[in-house]
Amino acid sequence: MNPRESNRRNFLKNGAALAGLAMGTAASALPAAAESAPDIDELHKYGERSHLVKSVRIGSINNPERRLKDEPVAFGLKSPLQDQAGMITPSSLHFIVSHGYEPPDIDPQEHRFLIHGMVDRPLIFTVDELKRLPSVSRFHFIECHGNSSPGGPGGPERKSVAATPQDTHGFTSCSLWTGVPLSLLLKEAGVQKGATWITAEGSDASKHSKSIPIGKALDDALVAYGMNGEPIRPEQGFPLRLVTPGWQGINNVKWLHRIQVVDEPYMAMMETSRYPSVKLDGKSRWFEFELGPKSVITRPSGGQRLPAQGYYEISGLAWSGGGAIRRVEISADGGKTWKDAQLHDPIAKKAHTRFTAPWNWNGEEAVLQSRCTDDQGTVQPTVAEVAKLWGADVDYLRKTSAIVGDFNAIQPWKVNRDGSVQNAIF
Amino acid sequence: MNPRESNRRNFLKNGAALAGLAMGTAASALPAAAESAPDIDELHKYGERSHLVKSVRIGSINNPERRLKDEPVAFGLKSPLQDQAGMITPSSLHFIVSHGYEPPDIDPQEHRFLIHGMVDRPLIFTVDELKRLPSVSRFHFIECHGNSSPGGPGGPERKSVAATPQDTHGFTSCSLWTGVPLSLLLKEAGVQKGATWITAEGSDASKHSKSIPIGKALDDALVAYGMNGEPIRPEQGFPLRLVTPGWQGINNVKWLHRIQVVDEPYMAMMETSRYPSVKLDGKSRWFEFELGPKSVITRPSGGQRLPAQGYYEISGLAWSGGGAIRRVEISADGGKTWKDAQLHDPIAKKAHTRFTAPWNWNGEEAVLQSRCTDDQGTVQPTVAEVAKLWGADVDYLRKTSAIVGDFNAIQPWKVNRDGSVQNAIF
Repeated sequence: MNPRESNRRNFLKNGAALAGLAMGTAASALPAAAESAPDIDELHKYGERSHLVKSVRIGSINNPERRLKDEPVAFGLKSPLQDQAGMITPSSLHFIVSHGYEPPDIDPQEHRFLIHGMVDRPLIFTVDELKRLPSVSRFHFIECHGNSSPGGPGGPERKSVAATPQDTHGFTSCSLWTGVPLSLLLKEAGVQKGATWITAEGSDASKHSKSIPIGKALDDALVAYGMNGEPIRPEQGFPLRLVTPGWQGINNVKWLHRIQVVDEPYMAMMETSRYPSVKLDGKSRWFEFELGPKSVITRPSGGQRLPAQGYYEISGLAWSGGGAIRRVEISADGGKTWKDAQLHDPIAKKAHTRFTAPWNWNGEEAVLQSRCTDDQGTVQPTVAEVAKLWGADVDYLRKTSAIVGDFNAIQPWKVNRDGSVQNAIF
Repeated sequence: MNPRESNRRNFLKNGAALAGLAMGTAASALPAAAESAPDIDELHKYGERSHLVKSVRIGSINNPERRLKDEPVAFGLKSPLQDQAGMITPSSLHFIVSHGYEPPDIDPQEHRFLIHGMVDRPLIFTVDELKRLPSVSRFHFIECHGNSSPGGPGGPERKSVAATPQDTHGFTSCSLWTGVPLSLLLKEAGVQKGATWITAEGSDASKHSKSIPIGKALDDALVAYGMNGEPIRPEQGFPLRLVTPGWQGINNVKWLHRIQVVDEPYMAMMETSRYPSVKLDGKSRWFEFELGPKSVITRPSGGQRLPAQGYYEISGLAWSGGGAIRRVEISADGGKTWKDAQLHDPIAKKAHTRFTAPWNWNGEEAVLQSRCTDDQGTVQPTVAEVAKLWGADVDYLRKTSAIVGDFNAIQPWKVNRDGSVQNAIF
């Protein structure tokens, strides 16, 4: 007999015996206690948060017409960054951008992962077989390339003066990803001469495919099965996800079932019709992948209200596709002066990093901003600098609803005299 | 209007309008799509794991008579270490040792935290007030001092040859804890001369109290409100928990509502009647706090079966109350030879550290063991060495059901020729 079964049965048996014994001495009390004893295995087998904690993902939909036609990019949900402690996003609150309302219901015992194409030995793995191989666990953020952009999905609420960090920056999340380095699997398969790209495909209904240069595949990409200590959540790709650290979210293919090694990018639908950002001169920004340095103060932030003058800790998150965060500076006077924030461990490459700084609010208007620098020396730009990169001005960014990705401008929050905090991006 | 409400209402309105328009052109298709469109906010506001992932905490009860009388240490549940990826324990699977079946249902808005006793300025905080103060986030394990002991709660299944790592070592878990350093709060309160201890009290029904030397309180103790990115779970102390890194679990007072600064230890019930471990010479081991270096291989491990000869990654967890893990060695031949395992980031002080090592199984019997060393140079002992510390022999440890805490002996797993893996502690 399984020792667990045995334990439980012994308990029930002993409990019943004690109750029986007690009958003669205190007939009313102990039997009732025995009967009312709950099954603690059932009560606590997988815990839940307090019913008084209300933090939730919020849907961000600006294309109902697409949704009704069942077209791609039907919906996204943003993560409540303002409620997060530390640098890990709880898995239940990881942002979602997806092409179907429900993730595929995949049985991990039945799932197969194939590597084929320009390789000497095509390989096929079960999830259990992958778990036998050398593994790594690394903190990495995943971010939709449209996150915090004034246009595109989520743009309308991003620009609202009432916006929270969830509204402005909620399409990014950070997890501890566990899996097998893709480089190891490709080495095992034997990549042939002339191979320059891979195409990764998910097993969702839309068969989402993405081309990725083989250099990235051989660098730090992961075939991940674990997320924050447990199997990847269904909404995040259960049972397997390709993790491409620091690259646009779309490269992190969920429900991964196939990688084909090829010698040219496969012009998948998402690469040609939806995702390339268009500059004002009409040229697309093709095949851009790496996300720039970005940061946001999560407390105090839009939608909050400071109850009184006095001490507040400024706290926020910074990240970069270029590497680790080396520095975060804080301004409380609209950008006139800046001082260094404290960075908190772990400071991992291509991961959210928590920063804090002390601040005393004197009751006057104030504008709070954070500006990060990554270990390549790249500095987070101002809105004006971002506009210039796009060949536009700030007024264009304010008005456009065109998809504008890779918008990593400094985020200002305005503190009013009544303690209310507002989005002051434009 | 709240922008979230606004978003959802706009979507519903637009959806309805489109459906209305469509009526004239494709009366049967689009209205049905509109009606069947689910409320995605509701579907995905707080995600769940796949229904096919079955890993759960398991109750460990060997005192049904106490439970029926509603006495302390009524129940505990062990965490499924063998299923965990990386070094973070999912909050839903964090082990529990508790004095009531259900945690208190505390409203964080109503909760108060008091510091009083030998201080110049008694202080009282709401949870929101604590969140305004300087915060830190740190990885720390919490471990019941009876974890992995052959006696005490959990002893019977710990000794079974069929034991899994959950059965043998499931009373430890590791989280990212976020909160305010207790040292900062005590400094603010002004600790008076002559104060040598604190007494921390929870607001559960049993008013669990614990005395802690003031040196620890001023060192690295935390008044924590965050756990793995979100509010502490009810089973782990929501809304506040005292975290005493590296010290026996009982010092990490849940549902913390009061700290009294005193000049002697308060002989709380749990300190005098239940927890001191008794040596064979009859002397108690009073006021021991720091947990020794310990490790366990979680894969391959008891209860698993290797499907075939060949390559396996050995993977496990190591931790020490004395500091960070500096080294883990692996033996696959019953302790004759040892080689270094790889340690994976983050390697944090007083936190679980993930280790891995390559292993080729040749189909013969094998005994797998791990042995860790912390950054104080303390090495995890053998069973014989632990027995000697207790003034006993291995046979005594095998037979006893007395509470024997702080049992950190090396854990051997025996691999049989049929691939089955068994607990070989005795």
